[in-house]
This record gives sequence, C-alpha cells and structure tokens, in this order.
Amino acid sequence: MYKHTRNGISVVILSVASLSIQTLLTAISMSAIATNGVVPAGGSYFMISRSLGPEFGGAVGSCFYLGTTFAGSMYILGAIEILLMYIAPSAAIFVSDNPDGEAGAMLNNMRVYGSIFLVLMSLLVFVGVKYVNKLASVFLACVIVSILSIYTGALVSAFSPPSFPVCMLGNRSLAQHELKDGQCMKTLQVLLEPPPPLEGANASESFNGTDAPPVTAAAAQERTTDLWRHFCNSSELSAVCDEYFLHNNVTQIQGIPGLASGVIADNIWSSYSAKGDVLERGSHHSPHRDAVSNHFPYVFADITTSFTLLIGIFFPSVTGIMAGSNRSGDLKDAQRSIPIGTILAILTTSLVYLSCVLLFGSCVEGVVLRDKFGDSVKGNLVVGTLSWPSPWVIVIGSFFSTCGAGLQSLTGAPRLLQAIAKDNIIPFLRVFGHGKANGEPTWALLLTAVLAELGILIASLDLVAPILSMFFLMCYLFVNLACALQTLLRTPNWRPRFSYYHWTLSFLGMTICLALMFISSWYYAIVAMVIAGMIYKYIEYNGAEKEWGDGIRGLSLSAARFALLRLEEGPPHTKNWRPQLLVLLKLDEDAHVKSPRLLTFASQLKAGKGLTIVGTVIPGNFLQTYGEALAAEQTLKHLMEKERVKGFVQCIVTQKPREGISHMIQSSGLGGMRHNTVVMGWPDAWRQSEDPQSWKTFINTVRVTTTAHLALLVPKNISLFPSNTEPCTDGFIDVWWIVHDGGMLMLLPFLLRQHKVWRKCSMRIFTVAQMEDNSIQMKKDLATFLYHLRIDAYVEVVEMHDSDISAYTYERTLMMEQRSQMLRQMRLSKSDREKERVRWSFDDAQLVKDRNSMLRLTSIGSDEDEDTDGPGAGDRSAEYRRVHMTWTRDKALQLRSNTQTHTASVCSTPEGFRDMLNIRPDQSNVRRMHTAVKLNEVIVNKSHDARLVLLNMPGPPKNPEGDENYMEFLEVLTEGLERVLLVRGGGSEVITIYS
Amino acid sequence: MYKHTRNGISVVILSVASLSIQTLLTAISMSAIATNGVVPAGGSYFMISRSLGPEFGGAVGSCFYLGTTFAGSMYILGAIEILLMYIAPSAAIFVSDNPDGEAGAMLNNMRVYGSIFLVLMSLLVFVGVKYVNKLASVFLACVIVSILSIYTGALVSAFSPPSFPVCMLGNRSLAQHELKDGQCMKTLQVLLEPPPPLEGANASESFNGTDAPPVTAAAAQERTTDLWRHFCNSSELSAVCDEYFLHNNVTQIQGIPGLASGVIADNIWSSYSAKGDVLERGSHHSPHRDAVSNHFPYVFADITTSFTLLIGIFFPSVTGIMAGSNRSGDLKDAQRSIPIGTILAILTTSLVYLSCVLLFGSCVEGVVLRDKFGDSVKGNLVVGTLSWPSPWVIVIGSFFSTCGAGLQSLTGAPRLLQAIAKDNIIPFLRVFGHGKANGEPTWALLLTAVLAELGILIASLDLVAPILSMFFLMCYLFVNLACALQTLLRTPNWRPRFSYYHWTLSFLGMTICLALMFISSWYYAIVAMVIAGMIYKYIEYNGAEKEWGDGIRGLSLSAARFALLRLEEGPPHTKNWRPQLLVLLKLDEDAHVKSPRLLTFASQLKAGKGLTIVGTVIPGNFLQTYGEALAAEQTLKHLMEKERVKGFVQCIVTQKPREGISHMIQSSGLGGMRHNTVVMGWPDAWRQSEDPQSWKTFINTVRVTTTAHLALLVPKNISLFPSNTEPCTDGFIDVWWIVHDGGMLMLLPFLLRQHKVWRKCSMRIFTVAQMEDNSIQMKKDLATFLYHLRIDAYVEVVEMHDSDISAYTYERTLMMEQRSQMLRQMRLSKSDREKERVRWSFDDAQLVKDRNSMLRLTSIGSDEDEDTDGPGAGDRSAEYRRVHMTWTRDKALQLRSNTQTHTASVCSTPEGFRDMLNIRPDQSNVRRMHTAVKLNEVIVNKSHDARLVLLNMPGPPKNPEGDENYMEFLEVLTEGLERVLLVRGGGSEVITIYS
Repeated sequence: MYKHTRNGISVVILSVASLSIQTLLTAISMSAIATNGVVPAGGSYFMISRSLGPEFGGAVGSCFYLGTTFAGSMYILGAIEILLMYIAPSAAIFVSDNPDGEAGAMLNNMRVYGSIFLVLMSLLVFVGVKYVNKLASVFLACVIVSILSIYTGALVSAFSPPSFPVCMLGNRSLAQHELKDGQCMKTLQVLLEPPPPLEGANASESFNGTDAPPVTAAAAQERTTDLWRHFCNSSELSAVCDEYFLHNNVTQIQGIPGLASGVIADNIWSSYSAKGDVLERGSHHSPHRDAVSNHFPYVFADITTSFTLLIGIFFPSVTGIMAGSNRSGDLKDAQRSIPIGTILAILTTSLVYLSCVLLFGSCVEGVVLRDKFGDSVKGNLVVGTLSWPSPWVIVIGSFFSTCGAGLQSLTGAPRLLQAIAKDNIIPFLRVFGHGKANGEPTWALLLTAVLAELGILIASLDLVAPILSMFFLMCYLFVNLACALQTLLRTPNWRPRFSYYHWTLSFLGMTICLALMFISSWYYAIVAMVIAGMIYKYIEYNGAEKEWGDGIRGLSLSAARFALLRLEEGPPHTKNWRPQLLVLLKLDEDAHVKSPRLLTFASQLKAGKGLTIVGTVIPGNFLQTYGEALAAEQTLKHLMEKERVKGFVQCIVTQKPREGISHMIQSSGLGGMRHNTVVMGWPDAWRQSEDPQSWKTFINTVRVTTTAHLALLVPKNISLFPSNTEPCTDGFIDVWWIVHDGGMLMLLPFLLRQHKVWRKCSMRIFTVAQMEDNSIQMKKDLATFLYHLRIDAYVEVVEMHDSDISAYTYERTLMMEQRSQMLRQMRLSKSDREKERVRWSFDDAQLVKDRNSMLRLTSIGSDEDEDTDGPGAGDRSAEYRRVHMTWTRDKALQLRSNTQTHTASVCSTPEGFRDMLNIRPDQSNVRRMHTAVKLNEVIVNKSHDARLVLLNMPGPPKNPEGDENYMEFLEVLTEGLERVLLVRGGGSEVITIYS
Repeated sequence: MYKHTRNGISVVILSVASLSIQTLLTAISMSAIATNGVVPAGGSYFMISRSLGPEFGGAVGSCFYLGTTFAGSMYILGAIEILLMYIAPSAAIFVSDNPDGEAGAMLNNMRVYGSIFLVLMSLLVFVGVKYVNKLASVFLACVIVSILSIYTGALVSAFSPPSFPVCMLGNRSLAQHELKDGQCMKTLQVLLEPPPPLEGANASESFNGTDAPPVTAAAAQERTTDLWRHFCNSSELSAVCDEYFLHNNVTQIQGIPGLASGVIADNIWSSYSAKGDVLERGSHHSPHRDAVSNHFPYVFADITTSFTLLIGIFFPSVTGIMAGSNRSGDLKDAQRSIPIGTILAILTTSLVYLSCVLLFGSCVEGVVLRDKFGDSVKGNLVVGTLSWPSPWVIVIGSFFSTCGAGLQSLTGAPRLLQAIAKDNIIPFLRVFGHGKANGEPTWALLLTAVLAELGILIASLDLVAPILSMFFLMCYLFVNLACALQTLLRTPNWRPRFSYYHWTLSFLGMTICLALMFISSWYYAIVAMVIAGMIYKYIEYNGAEKEWGDGIRGLSLSAARFALLRLEEGPPHTKNWRPQLLVLLKLDEDAHVKSPRLLTFASQLKAGKGLTIVGTVIPGNFLQTYGEALAAEQTLKHLMEKERVKGFVQCIVTQKPREGISHMIQSSGLGGMRHNTVVMGWPDAWRQSEDPQSWKTFINTVRVTTTAHLALLVPKNISLFPSNTEPCTDGFIDVWWIVHDGGMLMLLPFLLRQHKVWRKCSMRIFTVAQMEDNSIQMKKDLATFLYHLRIDAYVEVVEMHDSDISAYTYERTLMMEQRSQMLRQMRLSKSDREKERVRWSFDDAQLVKDRNSMLRLTSIGSDEDEDTDGPGAGDRSAEYRRVHMTWTRDKALQLRSNTQTHTASVCSTPEGFRDMLNIRPDQSNVRRMHTAVKLNEVIVNKSHDARLVLLNMPGPPKNPEGDENYMEFLEVLTEGLERVLLVRGGGSEVITIYS
C-alpha cells in the first residue's frame, strides 16, 4: 500500500496515467472482440485464438495463464506479509535472533502460512465459484472502506496532522531502527549521580522515544547517543566524526505535515535516485552525496527509482482488467457485461490511483514518500498513519483486498487453462480440459494450485515478477493487435456490437504495450517473447487442428492480394526473366498422369523457385464431371507433393480439349503471376495413333503458345529423362544454337545446372556457320559473348551449307544477322573502348536497345503476318498449300538453288539486313526435309553422347495441311538422340550481359 | 596519425578487426555484384540501383555521394591541420593572442587554406582524371614510405629508444604546455644573489627544459615552480596544497620506452575513461579520481573513450573500399579489377592497421597512448618521435596521404553524382548528368566542389561526421543486402563471375553494418535512415522510370508466390468467408463494356477489400484475335481504374462463348486466391433478342455456378444502380429471406453498408411464414438470431399461403426447417443456459455443427441429383419435360392442390424433416408461375420504396427446355421493382454467430 509513494509525484502521476491509458485502450479492444459473437470460457485466450489463430492464442494464453497463476501466489504472499508485519507479528513461527537471519525467517513464515492460505483458497474455489463471488463482495467492501478511510484521513490531516516524527541529520533522513536508543540527537544530558551503567543498558534505559531530550539539572553530564557512535569513531565527545555529521544539526520533523501544509510543491518534481543514494529532503543536495559509505544509518534508496521502475511496480495493480473476461464463461451475458464492467472498473481504479497519489503528495513529506521500507519511521505504514480513524482499517483492508485478488487469480487461471486444454492445441494439457459434472475445472485447479504452491515455496518472486508483467503486457498487446487487425482487414465477420473502438486506438494501445515492455526492461521483454515464441512453435509443430477460422488467414489473403497487385505492371525486364512454367499434363482413363517425368523435369528446371502451374484438361461436360475434376486435382496435387514441386493446380473440364488447352494457356495465373513458358510432352505415338486429334492438339498448342508470345519446351523421350534420385555424374548438355533467339537456349542449361541432378554436366554450345562466315572469328565472338553472359560453356562452330539448314533460314536470317551485327559491334566497341572509354557503356547500351527494338519489330512483324493472314487465309490458302508441301522429302531439292542465291544475296550485304525486316521472305524456299536429315546427321555426330540436347523448335506451318509434315520433320530431326529438349523462344530477350 | 593510440590495445585491435571483417565482407558482396555483368560508372550506386531498384539505389547513392563529398572536405581540413600544426606553423594567417581565441584562429586559417586547396584540387580533377591517377602514385609512395618509417622506427626503438620525456605527478600525467616555466618539479633551488625578478620573468629565465634541477651553491633558496602554483593556493612554500600533490612525487618518465621494454603488458588491457577523467598510469587508480577539478594541469581524457567511439574514429579510415568501384567507369576491366583491387587493398590496410596498433602498444607508454592531444608531450606527435629517421617523414607522409584521399573523393563523388543524374531518377539533378566532351562530369564536379567548400567553411565537422559514417555504413549494408537477396532469390540473371561469395557472408556483413550503425550511435543511425527514407519516398513519388529490372520485383514475385502457397489449404472457415468476386462483363462490338455499373456495384460490395477478378469472353479464334484480347484487357483495366476496383483482369478468346465462360469460372484465380462468387448482369432484352444464345448462355452460367458451388449475384436493372458519386441518403435495403440458405442474404446488405453509397440505408428483413407457423414467435426468434449475428435490421414476417411460394418450396422446405429447428434449439438452449451455463456453449456449437452437416448433406444430395441425372438424362427427359412445362402461367393452377397437400404434410411434422432429405421431392409440384405473381405482389407491396431488394434466386430447371419459362418466372417475380439483386448461395454457410 505504500508502494506508490517514493518519487516525485508528477512522475508517479505520469506513470499511473500511462498505465491507465494503456489498460483503457486494451479494454476497448477487448470489448470490441468480446462483443463480436459468443465468448465462452477462456476470455483473453479465446479472443486471441479465434482472432489470430491457435498458435498465437495458445502461446499468449499459456503465458497469460502462468502470469495469472504466479500473480495468485504473489497476492497470497502479499497478504501473509501484511498479516505478519502489521496484523499479527506474534503469529510468526520462525523467529530469528540475529538481524541477518530476519529476512530468512520471514520467508519461512511466509512459506508456511502461504501454503495454508493457498490450500484454503483452492478448497473454496473447488467447492464453488458462487462462494468466491459472494466473498468477492465482502472483499470489495473492505477495499472501499479503506479507500474512503484514506480520503477521510487526508481531509482530517488538513486540520489535525497526525504525529509522525522523522529524525533528520541536516536534510538526510535517518533510519530509526538502527538507533538502538531511539534518541534523535547527537548528545544527551544525563545526571551524574547514578553510576553510568554499561553502554548497552544505558541505551535501553534512556528509551524515552523520540521526544525532546529531557532537560535535567545543571549537574547533568553531556553523554553521546547511539547516533553519535554511528558517525564517530568512538563514543567520546572528542572523537573524530564524519564531516557531514559535524556540520549539520540533528532535527526532528513532522513526517505528515498534512493537506494544508503545501508540501505538494516540494513533492511535485521528481528526483530519481540510484541505489545506495542517501535520501535527502528538498532539491538542494549536499555535495558528495553518492560517496557516502553505507555503514551510516542514513535511509538509502533501495533500488534505482525511475519512471521505468515505477511502471514495473505499478503494473501488477492494473493486471485485473482481464479478470472479467477470464471468467467469461460464468457471466450471464458476457457480451454486455465485459465492456461495461471492464471499462468502468478501469476508470474507477485509475481515478482512485491518481487521487491517492495526489493526496499523498499533498500530505506527506518527500523524504518519507521516497523511503520504501519506512526505515525513517520505524516501519510504520505511512498510509496507516494517514488514514482515519485508525491504521487498522487500511491494514485489514489491504489484507482482504490481496486475499480477494489471490482468490480471483485462483478462480480465473484454471478456467483459462481449461479453455486451452479443451481446444486440444497443446496435447499434454488435454487432461486439464476435464472437470466436475458442472464443468468446474477440477484438474486445472489442481495444476494451478500446484504451480501457485511452487511460487509460494520460492517465496521471493522478485526475479520472476518482471516476466509475469511481460506476460500480461504481451496478452494485452495481442488483444489490441487482434482488434486492430480485424478492423483493418474488414473481415465481414467483424461486426462487434460495442462500437466505440477504432483501429488507431488499438494500434496505440499495442504500441504502448510494446513500449512499456521494452522500457521497463528490455531483456525480460525478450525473455518473455522467446518463451511465447517457443510455445508458438510447439503448437505449430503439433499441427493444431484449426477447427475455427482465424484472422491470420484473412491477413495472408490480403498479403497475397497485395503482393499480386504490386506485381501487375507489364512483363518483367529481361534481367528478371525466369521461366514461369505451365506444365500441361495428360491424364489417362484411370485418372493417372501419363508422363509424371514431365513434372520431374519441371522441378529440375525450377530448382524450387518461381511459379509452376500444373494444368490438365478433362474432356466432358462440366455439369456432370465436376467430381472427376476434383479427383484429378487431387491426383495432380499428390504427384506434385511427390515430386516436391511447389505450385498450383488448374483443372478444366471441357467439351473440346483443344479449346480447353487454349483457354488454359490464355487464362492461367493471376495478375503479374502468369506463366511465360509452356511445358508439354511430345505425342510419342503420334504415328501409330489412330486418332489424329492427339497430334493435331499438339500442333494447335504450339500455335497458341506462339501467338501468346510464350516460350515452349517440349522434352522428347521424356521417360528417359533422369529422375531426381539419379544425378548425372558427368557428361554434357549440348545446345544447338541454330536460331539465335532471345537466349532461351543459353539460359536453360544454366538453370538446369542449378539442380543437383544436372550440376555435374558441362555445357557445350554448337552454332552453325554458313560457308561464307568466318567461323574462327565467329567462335571467338561467341566465346566473348558467353564470357559477358557469365556462362561457362565450350563453344564449337559447325560449318554447314546454307541449304542444309534452310528450314531455319527464315528465322535464322533475321536473328543471325542481328547477332552477327551485334557481335561485330561488340568487337568495334571493344576497340573503341581503348580509345574512348566513357562512351563505351553508352554505345553498348544503345546496341542492346537496338537489338530489343529489332526483336520487337520482328515479333510485331510476325504478329501482323498472322493477323493479316487470318482473315485473308481463304484467299491465299492455295499459295500456302504449295509452300508447306515442300516439307516432304521428295520436294526438298527442287527449290534448293533458288534459296541459296536468295539468302546469299541478303547475307552478303550486312548493311542491308534492316531492309530485310520489311521483306517478306518467300516461305516456299525455306523449309525442307533435307534440312532435317542433314542437321540430324551433324547433331548425332557431335552430340550422341550428350546427356541432353537442346534444339530450336521451328515454328509450325501456318496451314493445317502441313501439320503432318511438320511432325515428320521434327521426328527426323531428333532421330537417334536419347534425350532432346525442343525449345521455342517467346520472342523476347531472356538473357542479358548486364547485371 | 595518432588517433589509434588511446586505449587498451586489445580493444583497439578488436575494433579494427571488426571493421576489417565488415569491410572484407562488403567487398566480397560488392565483388559478386560487380562481376555480374557490365558495371559502368556509378559503382555502388549502379550496383544497388540495378539490384534493388531505383528508389533504394537513389536514396543510398545520394547519401553516399554526400558522404563522399564531405569526407573530401574533411580530408582537406585534415591536411591543412597537419600543414599548420607540424609543417609550417608560421604560415598561419590568423594568430590569436589569448589562448581562448586560439581554436577560432586555427579554424579561420583552415577555412582560408582549405578553400585554396579545394580550388586547386578541383582544377586538377577538372583538367583530367589521368593527372589525378598519376598524382595518386606519388601519394601512394609517400604513404608507403611513412609506413616503412614507422616499422623501422619501432625496430630502432628496441635498441635506442628516442628521448620523449613525460612529466608525471604520482601516476598522473601533466599537461606540459600549462607549465609556463616548463619545470617538471615542485620546487627549484635558485641563488639568492640576483634580486628575484617578477614571477613571469622568472619563469622565462629558468627555462632550462625538463632536465634535472640545476644544483647550485648552498646559498641557494628553494623556490616554487609554476607547477606548484597550479596545485597550491599561493606560491609560498607554506601554502595549502592539494592532497594528491602533497602525497605524490613529481617524476619524469620516458614516453617511448621502446620495443624491448615490455610496456605492451601494461597496454594490452583496456581502461575506458570518461570525459574529464584524469589519465593515469597503470591499473592502480588513485581514489576519488573522478572528483578532480579540472583547473589542475592534469591531462584529461578528452571524450569518453569506448569501443563504440573507437569504431567511430576508425571508421573513416576504412571508407575507401568503394573508391575502386566509384570510378568503375574509368577502369579498363572493372569486373576483374574491382574484386582483386578491393579485396587486396582491404587485406593490406587491415594488416597495416593491426600491426601498427601492436607496434605502438609495444613501444609507447600507456599514458601517452591515451593522451589524444599530446598534452603531456607538448603537442609532439608520438608517431613522429617513434619514426625513423626523422619525424618529417611521417608528417609529410600523412599530409600527402590526406591530400590524396581528398583528391580521390573529389574524383569519385562527381562520377557518382553523374551516374545518378544520368538515370534521371531525381529530376532536379538532371543537369549534373552532362559533362565535357570526353564525358568528364563538369557540372557534377562543380556541385561537389561547392558542397565541399561548404564543409570547409563549417570547418568543424564534428557534428556532421557521424552521419557521414552512417551514410557509408548504409551503403555497405545495401550492397550486402543486394548480394544476399539475389543469391537467395536465385534470379537466373545472378551469375557473378566472382564465385567466392555466399549469402551467409553477405548477411553477416549486413548484420555487422547494422550493428555498427546502432552501436556507434543509434540516434545518428536513425537520422541517417530518415534522410535516406525521405530521398526514397521522393524518388518513389517522382515515379522513377524503371528502365532496368531490379531484384525487388523478384522479391515481390517470391512474396506473392509464398503468400499464395500458404493460402492453398481448402476453403476458408465460415468466419473468414467474404465474397471473392468474379465479375463477368460483356463487351459490345466496339470493345466497350456493356454495363460498367456492374463493376461499380462490385466495388461497392467489396469496399476495396478482397479479391476481384474481372473477366470477359471474346468470341473468335485466338490465333487471330490475340490483339483484340489485349485491347479488351486494356479497356477493362482502364474501367477498373476509373471505378477504383483493385483486382485482376482475365480475357479469354473462345470460339464458343458458353464454353469460354464455363472455363473462366472453372479456372480463374490461382491457388487459394479463387473467386467464390460470380457476378453477372441480367440479360435485359432477352425477350426482344433475336438470338436465343444470350439468355441460353445466362442460364448455362447459372448452372455452371451452381455446379461449382459458387455463389451467384445477378443485379437486375443494373443501369439504375447508384454510381459511387450518388450516395443514398436514406431508404432501405430489403431482404426477402425466402430460402434460408447459408446467410448470404444477411451478409450482403451488411457488406454493402460498409460502402459510403449505402451507408445510410437501413436494412429490413422479410421472411415468409406459412399459415401454420407461429409468426409472432418466428419474428422474435429471427430478431434474436440477428442480434447474435450482430446485424441491425428491422424484421418482418409476411404470412403467405404455402402455395404462393411453392416455387421455392423444394429449397425452402429443406432450409427453412433447418432454420426453424435451429431457432427452436436456440430457444431451448437459452433456457438451458439459465440452468446449466457451461453446457450452453457446447450445445450451441453442436447445433452449428449439425446445421453444417445438414447443409452438407443437402448439397451432396443435390450433387448426386445432378450426377445421376446426367447420364440418365435421356431416360428421364420426358418426365422432366413435363415438370418444367409447369413454369408457364397457364399451367400454374393445374397442380396447385396437389402441392398444397404434399408440402403441408411435410411441414406439419417438423420432427420428420430429416427424413425429407432422403425423399426426392416431386419436382413436378413445386414451381409455378402463380408463385411469381403472388410473391411479386407481396414484395412490391412491402418494398416498392426500397433502394434495393435482395431476393433468393431459385435454381434453373434441369432440362434446358424449361429455360424460357425460368426466365419468364424471374421477370414476373421482379416486375415493378426498381433495383433487384438476385442471390443464389453457394451451398455453404457464410455467416455465423461466433466471433
């Protein structure tokens, strides 16, 4: 009761006010949560777990339970302390003879009596909560009487201040219990007649208290008092004494000058003192105040008093705000009672606290206020002295109020534990969910009692106490967080009946909680958080069944939406390009995936990063096949789990698979989270298949992919590809860089080699030079280019006749010219750099820009082709038919010479290649089966031992009638190669030499 | 040069080592970034901006620029200080007479000379970087010579320690410049013969330095020295003197005992001193050391020396690590030079620093080491004394090295500024991007010079210096962050040629940077961060053109993917249910949205939260209509922007719109981010339309929605719905709760009322009671239910003949019975609660569970209906045809009596309603046009003035032949109502009384 009396009252008021505000804000948040639907037993735990999920709820709830339980033992210990110190000191069982053992004896007393009290209280709670409630009224009455008594006492002190003498040396207060003779003076006149007894006897004889010195006859001799002996080296008058003792007088002042004395003016400002400082009166400190040895009987400041410490001391006084909600299960209408009860209670206590601080500051001398243990007033309670009519009112009042608080803790804690246990989020707590027939938590009460007994046996809980405060604060923090979060997320279910909340208030409350935690002691705050974090992880590890929804899911939904919305800004820069895969899988009749190795390959390519969408199309009518679609989705999910692919599943039930695939390619993904690469299997048995639809669908998908500017990967002989458990120990990944598109062919081996299966493979790049090219220079340039790309690869240039690769010529002439132009410029710029360094980077950037714009031109050009071809397809179909018929072998040689002259003329004028973009190449000249045979020969020759061969995939013919020839071409091209990956770029750069 | 000499060398070594590690780690990160592609000018700025985006790059780069610039002025000031103090003190222009003005005069000197130096250096840089580089070699030579000189000196000191006397009183060192007579003794013997001159003269006369007192004749008189006068109150021998002075002797010791003296043992441990402390020798401090008044000529510790301060002092010495990368544009092969150069440089400097610290600790007396200003040695440089052969080597070496560092700053800073300016991310800096013809940054140099001149004019940069360190540290932090981030994200473009990096190293470096920032001074760290944050926001606000990609996008992609993957766990709990909309829009021929108000309505319903996908289907062939699809996407995006709907756009080009819509409903969204509600417009002119496809598509969509268990919202007369600018000021939202489904009808008005347009509307709920129901009790129950739902609404029960609502009966009997059963149970449980509180909540939970399971039964039941109907549709089509023919008006009355008896029999046995789930209701009896007319009558009667009427939408007929009648039914039902929202629940609970 005297705890709020030892600092400048302005600071005390500040700290009380900040705590009041914090509790008020928390109560508002709590009210909002409590009125948002039914709140059964569990109070704060229930609120947090239902708003923020079982992990947070369990962690914070368990901590709060521990806090409440140990707070219960602290209340009981407090009650015992009051009992033994002020009410019945004679009841002490252990009495110590020497002062050193006093504290120990007191602790033992507290242990014994505390245990007895605890057992009695637990029995009372066990018998029934209704008796506790009835007792609560009695306790409440005691508290009210005490408070009234203080108010009255303060008023009375204005007229007749109580006698409360304090002994002062100069302006330092002296600890009266150290003065064995109780004399508050330096010397003392005694008569000479009686022979001086021994000093010890003398002390007891002159025990006439703190009154003025008895003035005796003139024959009296001046004798020194006990005080003298404390400050001087002997009891002789000639002794050497402490300087301060010599210079200052010993006086006796009135400890409680009363309301009318104006002492408040002295008290209003704070004077923090460090441990071991001497308490001094007023603001004029004596010099060397800190260097005073502590064998002098001054009253020393016990512990560093500061704002933060004050908060720590006050905090337990406001922990009761959850008392109402802890017992929410017992309330008739929790939704109505919790807000009103809690908020009114907080307002009342805040008012009482603040007024008491003010009254004390107005009535009591500062030195006394700051003297924690009442040393200067022989251990009397300041409050007791002030109160009216008798100190007993206060003593008994505080005894009962602490008893009541203990009882409340013992009632609330088991209910909280029961609520946690019933939710079964912490398995080993399950047993505590059971209770008596009427639901009273018997086992939980037992555990609570055992824990509280533990606390009582420790007796001195100073070390644990701050952590408990942290637990409370953490609970409040999360209540505020829950309210703020739900308000901000605007969960439709967030419809509290209590409408005087706002997220800013909750946020402020949260901030104050956090600040208080860290201000009052940052290490305990961290310890508490670590404990809560461990419980959180434990619950998460145990995989709590989330039968109830929580706000965290709403939060992750919002987070995902926000992240996706942020993304939605055009395609990424070349630098950020990475394959975002749409893997098209096919299910057979038994709903099994036809080639699961496709997914394995995808996982190897991604190495766990980026987007993977796995899609499948189920033929049928959606209205009837919904169940199948769900089953297929499950199948795919299981497969993905097996292959450790993290991604998403899309299933479409469609009446026309070809349309379905087209729609899937168009619409998969969301916002900026779209695929840019389609992976699909090669229709292996297309020649044997009776149904031409299978490869028609394949070619159609290739067309859709091209139209949508997506890259396409078609692994051939997918069943031969390595699984994740068979890493390649050596060998090569061979890239046949025939069409020099955006660099997809360079990037893929690099990405594959990030995965452990391909890590040990080396990369080889083969490029095809025409006869007229300088292949040595070309190799050198390509090596330079790869160096700038920071890709390690062995480079080889294969010389071929132009006619041998004419199927690629259309794309190749466009791209290759760009590439060689670029390489030429690079060489140029390199020599430039020698002369003019600064401009180089600029030139180079320009070059890249040029390349990009050229590429854009190209792709737009081809777009236009298609757009204009589309409507006019009918008119020109005859021409196209002729064109694509050249895919057959027998017509291969027919147009050969024609092409050769044409391409040569274009290539021989490097300056003119820009014009070529505008020329529509005569497609009739460019594609031939001859190419496939020749190229295949070369590739098999060079890459027969390669682990994987990457090849450009030429575009499909515009006219569907050439489809079969196209398939044939690809078959011939890849014949004799074990594992082939056909790659078709999406028409944009995917690799850059820039960082 | 003497700055690293004033603390226990173990601590010094520790701080130097920690800085070395930090710089080394940063250099590793920097090397990785620098070798990942071309690094043009701009160094650190370029690296950060290209890795983390222009905002971070600009903010950190600008700060780093400021740091470099002011570091330049500090270097110049340092050079001037060396010049004026050690090289040519006579060059001082301003000379002060009194010692107080000395510092001021020195500052003025520094200002003048600093400006001159700055102009000269700027001119040099302007003339050409190649001269700077040539000078750099000269400077480097000077530095190397200096370092060698120190090493040699230290070695030499082992044999012949230099003479370096220090005057000590006891073990306190004395400031020699305060002793005007220079006598290091208390008294002095002088001859009597010459009459004693004035004291001042005496001092100058006896100026025979620090040698032993001259021993004169016996007639000599003992005179006091200047030292005496400092400690005693007069110069008389009888004067009262300081106690410490009395008790201790004055001695003279050797300041540099040399390498062989073993002084290192004394120096190895740290003794931190607080400002104003007296420097003492060894570890045995005298008592009351802190209480010494500072008018004694002791040497006082200047500022608090501590680990953190040491770091602050050392830091500028290691800021040079970016010097190489700052001038990356000038390097021949930046990718090769930066890693090698930087890392070697750091290793060298670290070695030199550490060895110097060790050498000093081994050679120099501790008191001297800790004496910052050399007070005890009359301002002589300790290093100078130690060095061999002459102190001039060191003085000139340090002068040139500081000059060189200044020159480096003046060269690097403008290049950095130019790089920032060229990227045009900070508009007002644009002008500084221009330069001379050869690219030299003229304007940037000018600005740099002006800023540096500012720094020189301030002269005393102590206040700004810590912020500069923070800027440097921040830059290092971000370089580390960029490296760690790109490694962790595995960007495909992250392929550094320098391969000795690891993200843990970068992360460690980052942590050390952050720790150093906050350890050395947390407030400056915060200030620096705030400055950088402001620049960041400014750049963000200016909307920097991101022509280059950055890692942040990769990060947000990863974040989005992670968030989405987290979500993918089944449907949300009822509590978390919120409408995630798929808004189906239709485009007309000109690619305009037909009813944009649909989107307005969606935005009102969402109030900006949750998912909104806007989808449209474009008829056509995807291969030819790709461009149109893109255009449509843009149109939708613009419309969404206009209506302030945040969401995603889906466009599908399809040959069959009906299939396309079905696919869109199936496949929109990604992972857990799926729509659960479809919004589509009512086909207004379906009766007039010649093309029956429009309403066929509508009905098909309704069917698909039902199959996919999605909710459906169909606003009728959408053009009459309020836009966002016309808020309803009053009126009602009327809910006709006929089919008591999952509560969608209750939730929607609540959600609408969150939006400002609908905020002022009140909600009314009408429910339909059959004649045999107790409508008063029903109203009461419903009100209770709404109270528990925390929804404010006026409740009205409308009594109707069962036959009047028979169209709904099938669904109604299922749902309504559940509802009334539930309400009955609620009443029961309420009375239960009075008796048995604890069980209540359990009961209630059970009830909700029951309801859910019933609903599940229902929906599965209907699923089965459809599943079994599907294949067998052919068999039963005749029956269905008959059923659905009853939708026409003329057949309405035909089956009336039949139904009435049937439903009555079901409803009259409330207990039997469970059985009903198994009964397949005879659908031929349940739907009639009569219903529509009757219901419409009642609704128009009650809700003609409502702002919005929400109505249950009955399910479409199974057989397509009834479609037209279905449309007719809905038309009749909603006739005469201004704004109607037809609602069809998705078959799951969407609202709950639980929090």
